Amino acid sequence: MAAALCPGSFDPPTNGHIDVIERAAKYFDSVVAAVIENPSKQPLFSADERKALLEGALSHLDNVEVASFSGLLVDFAAQRGVTAVVKGLRAVSDYDYELQMAQMNAALSPGLDTFFVPAKASWAFLSSSLVREVARYGRSVEGLVPAGVASALKARFAP
Amino acid sequence: MAAALCPGSFDPPTNGHIDVIERAAKYFDSVVAAVIENPSKQPLFSADERKALLEGALSHLDNVEVASFSGLLVDFAAQRGVTAVVKGLRAVSDYDYELQMAQMNAALSPGLDTFFVPAKASWAFLSSSLVREVARYGRSVEGLVPAGVASALKARFAP
Amino acid sequence: MAAALCPGSFDPPTNGHIDVIERAAKYFDSVVAAVIENPSKQPLFSADERKALLEGALSHLDNVEVASFSGLLVDFAAQRGVTAVVKGLRAVSDYDYELQMAQMNAALSPGLDTFFVPAKASWAFLSSSLVREVARYGRSVEGLVPAGVASALKARFAP
Amino acid sequence: MAAALCPGSFDPPTNGHIDVIERAAKYFDSVVAAVIENPSKQPLFSADERKALLEGALSHLDNVEVASFSGLLVDFAAQRGVTAVVKGLRAVSDYDYELQMAQMNAALSPGLDTFFVPAKASWAFLSSSLVREVARYGRSVEGLVPAGVASALKARFAP
Amino acid sequence: MAAALCPGSFDPPTNGHIDVIERAAKYFDSVVAAVIENPSKQPLFSADERKALLEGALSHLDNVEVASFSGLLVDFAAQRGVTAVVKGLRAVSDYDYELQMAQMNAALSPGLDTFFVPAKASWAFLSSSLVREVARYGRSVEGLVPAGVASALKARFAP
Amino acid sequence: MAAALCPGSFDPPTNGHIDVIERAAKYFDSVVAAVIENPSKQPLFSADERKALLEGALSHLDNVEVASFSGLLVDFAAQRGVTAVVKGLRAVSDYDYELQMAQMNAALSPGLDTFFVPAKASWAFLSSSLVREVARYGRSVEGLVPAGVASALKARFAP
Repeated sequence: MAAALCPGSFDPPTNGHIDVIERAAKYFDSVVAAVIENPSKQPLFSADERKALLEGALSHLDNVEVASFSGLLVDFAAQRGVTAVVKGLRAVSDYDYELQMAQMNAALSPGLDTFFVPAKASWAFLSSSLVREVARYGRSVEGLVPAGVASALKARFAP
Repeated sequence: MAAALCPGSFDPPTNGHIDVIERAAKYFDSVVAAVIENPSKQPLFSADERKALLEGALSHLDNVEVASFSGLLVDFAAQRGVTAVVKGLRAVSDYDYELQMAQMNAALSPGLDTFFVPAKASWAFLSSSLVREVARYGRSVEGLVPAGVASALKARFAP
Repeated sequence: MAAALCPGSFDPPTNGHIDVIERAAKYFDSVVAAVIENPSKQPLFSADERKALLEGALSHLDNVEVASFSGLLVDFAAQRGVTAVVKGLRAVSDYDYELQMAQMNAALSPGLDTFFVPAKASWAFLSSSLVREVARYGRSVEGLVPAGVASALKARFAP
Repeated sequence: MAAALCPGSFDPPTNGHIDVIERAAKYFDSVVAAVIENPSKQPLFSADERKALLEGALSHLDNVEVASFSGLLVDFAAQRGVTAVVKGLRAVSDYDYELQMAQMNAALSPGLDTFFVPAKASWAFLSSSLVREVARYGRSVEGLVPAGVASALKARFAP
Repeated sequence: MAAALCPGSFDPPTNGHIDVIERAAKYFDSVVAAVIENPSKQPLFSADERKALLEGALSHLDNVEVASFSGLLVDFAAQRGVTAVVKGLRAVSDYDYELQMAQMNAALSPGLDTFFVPAKASWAFLSSSLVREVARYGRSVEGLVPAGVASALKARFAP
Repeated sequence: MAAALCPGSFDPPTNGHIDVIERAAKYFDSVVAAVIENPSKQPLFSADERKALLEGALSHLDNVEVASFSGLLVDFAAQRGVTAVVKGLRAVSDYDYELQMAQMNAALSPGLDTFFVPAKASWAFLSSSLVREVARYGRSVEGLVPAGVASALKARFAP
């Protein structure tokens, strides 16, 4: 019955992202992993590519659907009839920013609830931007991202 | 089906605590609000009093039970068969400490998941220790704690 | 006698900004609300528009003047003969950055004093960038910004 | 006309404390440096001794009075008819705690305003507890505290 | 030639502590792991016991000596003729406090240099106090502390 | 024998950078101060200019060499056969980011060790970006950067 939204840029999805979504799917009846299309940013992978990468990495979870949206999170949540948002947290600076977003979203849409999932200790350093940086210079990112993402990064940065 | 644990000292429960438990109860099938008995601390209210205060403030929620425990959270969770912990977060220093606890608990009991609920903006400053301090000097704590807690504080600090 | 400077980008001014300036005006004899013109940034509103929006929102305060400047804050303060700077603070990351600025300014201009005003709890999440984001997607920002700013945002993002 | 309160434990006062009070006295017509008597703590110097140490260090400031109080800051401020509180800030953890106190005080006493003064860069590490620790082991604390405080510490820890 | 000091309470030593000392020993010619005797605290293990536990866990390192001291770190460092201090860091709140200590020590003893070693990601949550808490309730602490420490904890908390 | 790497953008080098490198050179047999060439950023000084500025400021240190690199730090370190990285730290937000980098680098290259050197209290506010900003508006940066850097900034921003 209860549904949750896991929003993110996912450019690309990391094992940290997948872990957060798996934990949401363990407790919520259904989960929408939602790729944020941000027209003012130049992503490495297009929104459709990011959706496909997430779908590949989440195919073992029956109650997870992948979607994408532009605009405000509160509007996408309302459109989907979802009132719970689940987000991963790593460093203190993440928390500072995400707390601000959660309070703004609650002000815009009373009844919208945000739940934060702390990163696994061993993946606390893992971010999409670091993964892109590592892959750009030809280093392996195995163990940091799903297998399909590792392949996509290799292809993207092939000489 | 999915159950959650909301542990805390609750000495006394504040409106911030009640808000977190209400949000857990909105999504989880059942919630155990669990008073931590810490024999090395001198609480203002005994564990039994704290249980009673919580029960009074949570009687409108059918799927919430109040309990108390001593020992480790991971052991109490296992004994109850619960794998989700829901905790409120206010300041950055809260996060620093709670993240450490969540990672330690996950190390001791793989499969135990912690979800953090950010405090409402307007209650971000609210803590049990500040409430005790205010009540000790005869100030009203109405609006900061449930009505039953306000009465209990008044009685406790009556001249 | 004592004057204070309240510098900011104010793109656009929020109710949080107005609150800080009102508090400065309560204690200092005169206050200069100073719009920072930053030629390397693309603001939503021009410096003149931001000045006009501030003037509209501060017309109830007799001892507040609105100005704009480019260059260093320490130079503008010296030119105006002002030695006190009053700034709002929200999150911990704000503090980290603003402390660095305050110490740099004191190094450049010994005798320049910075006072920080903590945001109201209920507005701790409020920032100009979140307000722009919300208005961009057609959401109401009433209650978050002065009435004149709400109208200006509506006009700016009209389809 | 405008008065400010500079509350603190001042056990003992450091050069960092004196700097904050001097800056408050530069802008406010009158300043009350107020020693907090906390019956649940065992201070190194009694409240009367701390008052005397502060008076010795602040005698060059005509518009500063030294007082002491027990109970809540908001009550002492009301009793004195003061609505501005000026406090020093050093580390991020200071800010986290002081922000919480400022928001609680504003909730208890609407109209009470807190201003934070960032520590001088070169004294950002200075705290009463570190000073006590250093003096306890016979090290000189010259340059860190007013001369009278250095003498008092020497006498207190004389073998 | 260059020597380093690794000070700590080590009550008890954890695998995180051993990792920091090993890394210091990898670069410095000699390392003194120094147990802080703090007469105002009630440790679980006496200073002699903590020295013995450290010695047991560090016997594989030829260039590491274990010592204990009371008083100020700067005095012990001077007595030993050591000018480098190496300390582990975990959370942001650790950093806030340790930075203050490092700057105070440099003020007391110009030429004393502090180096911080970030905790391994997978041990970022590990602290002596959490280890004591876990062992107190009969849980295994294997993998978190050296084998000798695990035995000592088991013996100490044996029913 | 033991060598250390001090990487940075050094755009331009500040007295804070020089202090960190001097401290590394005090303990490590040899130090490589390594200018990061980041093709996606527009620096004020080219990599060659930054190298020359560093060389000018470090000529008093026999065991320090200046180099530049593009790509990943772990690759440059491996190519040079260096396993220790020494970095300065100022604010808490620095620590948050640098901790993430250090843990990522240790994951990519087990055996790579990062040491953090806290900034001198009196230079905690000092950053290359603030120095550029100050120089851009014709203010003197003496005392904040090496003499050669001050001249280079003056020349760069000459009208």
